[in-house]
Amino acid sequence: MPAAYIKSVIKTVPDYPKAGIMFRDVTSVLEDHKAYSSTLAHMVELFSPMGFDKIAGTEARGFLFGAPLAIELGIGFIPVRKPNKLPREVISESYELEYGTDCLEIHKDAVKPGERVLMIDDLLATGGTMIATANLIRRLGGVVEHAGFVISLPDLGGEQKLLDIGVKSYSICEFEGE
Amino acid sequence: MPAAYIKSVIKTVPDYPKAGIMFRDVTSVLEDHKAYSSTLAHMVELFSPMGFDKIAGTEARGFLFGAPLAIELGIGFIPVRKPNKLPREVISESYELEYGTDCLEIHKDAVKPGERVLMIDDLLATGGTMIATANLIRRLGGVVEHAGFVISLPDLGGEQKLLDIGVKSYSICEFEGE
Repeated sequence: MPAAYIKSVIKTVPDYPKAGIMFRDVTSVLEDHKAYSSTLAHMVELFSPMGFDKIAGTEARGFLFGAPLAIELGIGFIPVRKPNKLPREVISESYELEYGTDCLEIHKDAVKPGERVLMIDDLLATGGTMIATANLIRRLGGVVEHAGFVISLPDLGGEQKLLDIGVKSYSICEFEGE
Repeated sequence: MPAAYIKSVIKTVPDYPKAGIMFRDVTSVLEDHKAYSSTLAHMVELFSPMGFDKIAGTEARGFLFGAPLAIELGIGFIPVRKPNKLPREVISESYELEYGTDCLEIHKDAVKPGERVLMIDDLLATGGTMIATANLIRRLGGVVEHAGFVISLPDLGGEQKLLDIGVKSYSICEFEGE
């Protein structure tokens, strides 16, 4: 199915999680198996020729696309998680939210030096979680130059912020006017 | 790869998250693509002939196996999440933990009456989250009679508790002595 079909399946929830936000709900893609399979097929077509060693997905919606893509590409999957969720030795990276800060963690042995890692998440907004994820992978010696999303919100500037740290973004559909 | 290989890849972290617990770390399966793909292949072989309409996976580790299995089987995926994570109208179900209670939510329109739903999670211990998940699906009119896990800990009694509510469990490997 074309990207336009996938976009048509994404439900918009007005004023969620707060007034004025048009929330793009990727769970509606999961529930429609044609949209979900097509989303994965688009990602496989795009990323398969690039020869990545691993995929990193950020808790929790990044798991929903990153994990099946790792299976389709026959490579390992690295879960990037909120604090105190990973059982072995981790490194942590804090990042700023609109109010306050948040933190992500990765297992210290999840990436070997020189491995090429593709970052996958459901949605690119301001890019904060992806920059933190890229920092974690690079601190372990991994190479991160690409990130894939189902949805991007170009008006929020995340694509440029990722380019500024040497990461090119790919998304299946865009929603403007955020 | 046989189930014994998958079991050999699972790392055990002693005294996590607290003293006396031998934590079976399923993230080590994800990072080894042979183990991860084999895990999915075992699940496809087992569940494909049963003709499910949808897979439900519980946040967050259930996403890591349920989402790729839904893609492999060509059916939709239902994320079952912690409170205030799903953007549309939900129903909620509380369940008891060792100390206190926790709560899971599902979108009200995620299951249609009569749909056959397979529950997938990484690990079966006491069965509490699976019983809450089954209750949510049944309250929406879905049929739940099967649950699949990478790991089960038979000494914790979850299998019998699920049987008591009419759900049969399948796991790829077992760890005893918990």
